[in-house]
Amino acid sequence: MDLPYTRIKGGICAPSGFVGNAVSCGIKNPDSDRLDLALIYSNVPCQSAGVFTQNRVKAAPVRMTQSHLRANPVRAIISNSGNANACTGVTGLADARVMAKETGKLLGIRQREVAVASTGVIGIPLPMARITPKFEELVSGLKPKKGNEIAKAIITSDTIEKEFAISFEYEGKRIRIGGCAKGAGMINPNMATMLCYITTDANVGALCLSRSVQDAVQNTFNRITIDGDTSTNDTLLVLANGEAGNKVFHRGSKGCKIFCHALQFVMNKLAKAIVRDGERVTKFVTVKVKGARSQNDAKKVADAVANSSLVKASWNGEDPNWGRIIHAVGYSGASVREEMIDIYFDKKQACAGGLQAKTNPEVLRNIVRKKEFTITIDLNRGSGDYHIYASDISPEYVEFNRSEYAYWKQAKKDGIFD
Amino acid sequence: MDLPYTRIKGGICAPSGFVGNAVSCGIKNPDSDRLDLALIYSNVPCQSAGVFTQNRVKAAPVRMTQSHLRANPVRAIISNSGNANACTGVTGLADARVMAKETGKLLGIRQREVAVASTGVIGIPLPMARITPKFEELVSGLKPKKGNEIAKAIITSDTIEKEFAISFEYEGKRIRIGGCAKGAGMINPNMATMLCYITTDANVGALCLSRSVQDAVQNTFNRITIDGDTSTNDTLLVLANGEAGNKVFHRGSKGCKIFCHALQFVMNKLAKAIVRDGERVTKFVTVKVKGARSQNDAKKVADAVANSSLVKASWNGEDPNWGRIIHAVGYSGASVREEMIDIYFDKKQACAGGLQAKTNPEVLRNIVRKKEFTITIDLNRGSGDYHIYASDISPEYVEFNRSEYAYWKQAKKDGIFD
Repeated sequence: MDLPYTRIKGGICAPSGFVGNAVSCGIKNPDSDRLDLALIYSNVPCQSAGVFTQNRVKAAPVRMTQSHLRANPVRAIISNSGNANACTGVTGLADARVMAKETGKLLGIRQREVAVASTGVIGIPLPMARITPKFEELVSGLKPKKGNEIAKAIITSDTIEKEFAISFEYEGKRIRIGGCAKGAGMINPNMATMLCYITTDANVGALCLSRSVQDAVQNTFNRITIDGDTSTNDTLLVLANGEAGNKVFHRGSKGCKIFCHALQFVMNKLAKAIVRDGERVTKFVTVKVKGARSQNDAKKVADAVANSSLVKASWNGEDPNWGRIIHAVGYSGASVREEMIDIYFDKKQACAGGLQAKTNPEVLRNIVRKKEFTITIDLNRGSGDYHIYASDISPEYVEFNRSEYAYWKQAKKDGIFD
Repeated sequence: MDLPYTRIKGGICAPSGFVGNAVSCGIKNPDSDRLDLALIYSNVPCQSAGVFTQNRVKAAPVRMTQSHLRANPVRAIISNSGNANACTGVTGLADARVMAKETGKLLGIRQREVAVASTGVIGIPLPMARITPKFEELVSGLKPKKGNEIAKAIITSDTIEKEFAISFEYEGKRIRIGGCAKGAGMINPNMATMLCYITTDANVGALCLSRSVQDAVQNTFNRITIDGDTSTNDTLLVLANGEAGNKVFHRGSKGCKIFCHALQFVMNKLAKAIVRDGERVTKFVTVKVKGARSQNDAKKVADAVANSSLVKASWNGEDPNWGRIIHAVGYSGASVREEMIDIYFDKKQACAGGLQAKTNPEVLRNIVRKKEFTITIDLNRGSGDYHIYASDISPEYVEFNRSEYAYWKQAKKDGIFD
């Protein structure tokens, strides 16, 4: 870390004034005590900002939380895993409202100050009979050191929880930013089946906060891809409660810039952690494009390469196959000239001017054998550049995603559709 | 077949006046005698039309054949498998020219009357030392009944050859159309790693032929997808030599319409055969979209559903997962309203107005257990419709595509890069 940030413990509860809790409702599995319901709460009023899925099919909690954020800042987030509460119609909206209302009542705040998020299977109503009785335990157990439990409660097919927190000093005040995230499948730029919650005790103006969140997401969560699918539930929320006591960061100020940089630093860590823990992923590949006619062209190329099944399969097979990469460059829709394209694996050239470079293929192969490497595609046409973080696709990814049918059978057994 | 077509034998050589041959050059594997070089030839001059890849990285034979077709009709096609002659620069163009020139010389026609096509690995020059010595055997063995050998010589990872021929009568003349195709991987609308050659003894005017080919491709080969990758080598060529003796089909005439319909019938059979034989494919799924605001919107939805890794994995797992389908509908970019979307598996409703329909999930599951089924998505927004033929994605597909590295090692051993 060459920046003046200190990594600290505590995750989402690291910043002053935030408390949390997580409980198990048996949403993931009625016979298991895995944590699947989490609550994050700021002891004092705060500013908030959010980014949500661009999928036109939006889960009920996304619709409701968007309207809450338009009305006022939120200061609590209740989040369940195991069921997305998506494609659940009026029942789904009513269930999301119950979650906000009951939690708000117990916290002594208004319903619309509570954000709700869900992730999991689509199309099955939430098992509210197992969720509602847990609200009291959830709220009464709120504590300042529950960051790790919260990070565990929001994940689904992730293999590990993802949390990260930093502190830095600005004008004599220590500012903390902490967050946790959930990823694994349906990960695509414009976001992912992704939940990400970030808290900070910085004192941030509303406009500085919303702009900083937008900018930071563009450079982090909108640059990751696992399988090219965009979820119905993506939710990113940032809460800033001002407990650090700094002079308020107004939009355009030096303080706002410094805050935005730090926020992006935290988001970048969490975004990369999502790719590294993608479903049955074995490689973390940075796809860099430069020399494009425009940044938009560079993005098209990066997206096409990072989402090509054949390119991803070749990474899984540790095959330095630049032929499949250039073929994806060709169909990306960007303005390219085949005979000007250079491709590198880390610093070693695989393709020079559209042709096989002189590098020994074994040298390239040793690069693709690593867990993490960078592919650089130089179009030599201009100054547009872009990068994206991608994973391979494995036979096990497909195997893993073959069926959620067992979940449906369980739901039927539970009488959810009756 | 409810149309007045008779299925006939002979494939690409079924129409009068066409001869062919196929030999083994060891391009696929120097130690094997698998057929990998084919020649199709019309004994008399003919009309021709072609459609080529939209990838901006185009293989040398594609570039050359496109320029041949602009200059004059072609009457011979030489086609190799095992090596794409793509990303091979001036060497690749020179090799493609040698193939056209030497074959033309032996046939007594001009170089530019010969079309060349290649399919296989990208980025490695053709092993011309093994190909050139075979031209004489290839030409001297031309015979009218070699359709099946040709169909075998053009395939790569396909498990079976794909050929189909029909005849029909028009104004007292018997007209034949025959073809063969190659698919398996890199199959996407706007074509595929696809080679398709079609011959007919119909007497067709140049404008009727080129328009018919364009229209028929739009409704057939541009509606299939396996993995969403568009190849560098796609080539579809149609040769019409007039030997049937019918009065010439001019553009806009009744005869031209009837010819176009028959051509589309043959292409549809071959296109579907490509999806059924996709790499490690277990399902053939027709994705129908209706009720879209426009045909373009319907196409966006069909493309998104048919190319979603998660949807395809669920088909492989025989999981009637309408949730993943509706999530792909949502991110397709089409104008949709969640609460108006209906989804059917064959005739059984899975999703009604964005919600779980009442159909017993076991009934839906039995449909997805079949080898072939239809998914109908009704957006209930307008009259735009579209359909596409898609496959599932299997763990074995990824396994199969993990590495072509062995091929590279062989090429190095052969001294191809020296």
